Amino acid sequence: MTTGRFITLEGGEGAGKSTQLRALAQALRQRGIEVVETREPGGSDGAEAIRTLLLTGGADRWSPRAEALLFAAARADHVEKTIRPALVRGAWVLSDRFLDSSRAYQGQGDLTDADIVTLHRIGSGGFLPDRTLLLTLPEDQAASRAQARDGDATDRIGGRSSDFHRAVSEAFVSFAETERARVRAVDASGQVEDVTARLLAAIADLLP
Amino acid sequence: MTTGRFITLEGGEGAGKSTQLRALAQALRQRGIEVVETREPGGSDGAEAIRTLLLTGGADRWSPRAEALLFAAARADHVEKTIRPALVRGAWVLSDRFLDSSRAYQGQGDLTDADIVTLHRIGSGGFLPDRTLLLTLPEDQAASRAQARDGDATDRIGGRSSDFHRAVSEAFVSFAETERARVRAVDASGQVEDVTARLLAAIADLLP
Repeated sequence: MTTGRFITLEGGEGAGKSTQLRALAQALRQRGIEVVETREPGGSDGAEAIRTLLLTGGADRWSPRAEALLFAAARADHVEKTIRPALVRGAWVLSDRFLDSSRAYQGQGDLTDADIVTLHRIGSGGFLPDRTLLLTLPEDQAASRAQARDGDATDRIGGRSSDFHRAVSEAFVSFAETERARVRAVDASGQVEDVTARLLAAIADLLP
Repeated sequence: MTTGRFITLEGGEGAGKSTQLRALAQALRQRGIEVVETREPGGSDGAEAIRTLLLTGGADRWSPRAEALLFAAARADHVEKTIRPALVRGAWVLSDRFLDSSRAYQGQGDLTDADIVTLHRIGSGGFLPDRTLLLTLPEDQAASRAQARDGDATDRIGGRSSDFHRAVSEAFVSFAETERARVRAVDASGQVEDVTARLLAAIADLLP
């Protein structure tokens, strides 16, 4: 019996996660694999309702603690209603962001990384991806890509300071260094198809 | 400098919490105390938005784990935006339900009591009431009061089985037995004014 694989794409704003997720899904489908494309926050009916709460309103609408709990609640729903059922039927699931984004973004405030991991244990039994692909870009390239896409109209989270986004990038890199079996850093600069080829190489050991 | 007191009313459906909260607030105001009346889930703008997610939809809209995270998120917002600011200015806060309801209701599923207490530590720094008044009623009286009030139209949580509600009652009683300094069980049968007098007696040591 085939079992699906769960792959997450992570990285800061402007790293090209959405574009690469679509390209990677297409490449996997060409290999005959059923692929479910999803994203966080969201990816299931309940999680999308929570996403609306998270991404609208002023920057101070939610405290970092309330925000971390809402992300964990959305993730619990996403795992239970979308991800696990797809994996059980043998599909691969590609998610634009997952737990590591909570660790990188909500872990910059007064919450510890251990707290965020604990929320994931309580909410989702500590469920982890088979592989996490971290798209890395030099800071100036990421900033100009994010700016070109969003202009000045960023949401509650995208609209934070460059210091914040630098700390997020450093947190992501530390995950890749600490969890080498699961998290692979992939250079996201250059042509789209070249990046996709690097991503496929980083999951080659998981392919049927 | 006067500091306010935080009092919570707990108990199953039909115990008379809402009626007694109003009566207790009135009695405290007659003593010259500023009183903020609030409730859970809700009690602040963000928490009321989460309340809508929690109380609408089918019984299986949220898994017990997602539900516990949403309650903890709403509570974090309620504590930060409503309860703490009122206490800081010297007001008393009376809340219809708080943490003990999460422990009694969400603790009936696959979450442990320790998990729910951990969510409260992460969300709200483990903030506890100065006194929790547990309104107790014989099961048949509680059921007939709840029925008289709601008819057949109960929400996602009120509409569960009598076994569930019995387990909730037993959990509440266990909190009163384990945390005697904070939680006081008060007989909620008989005339409204008699119950209010018992509640006032159970907070007499906190009164100015």
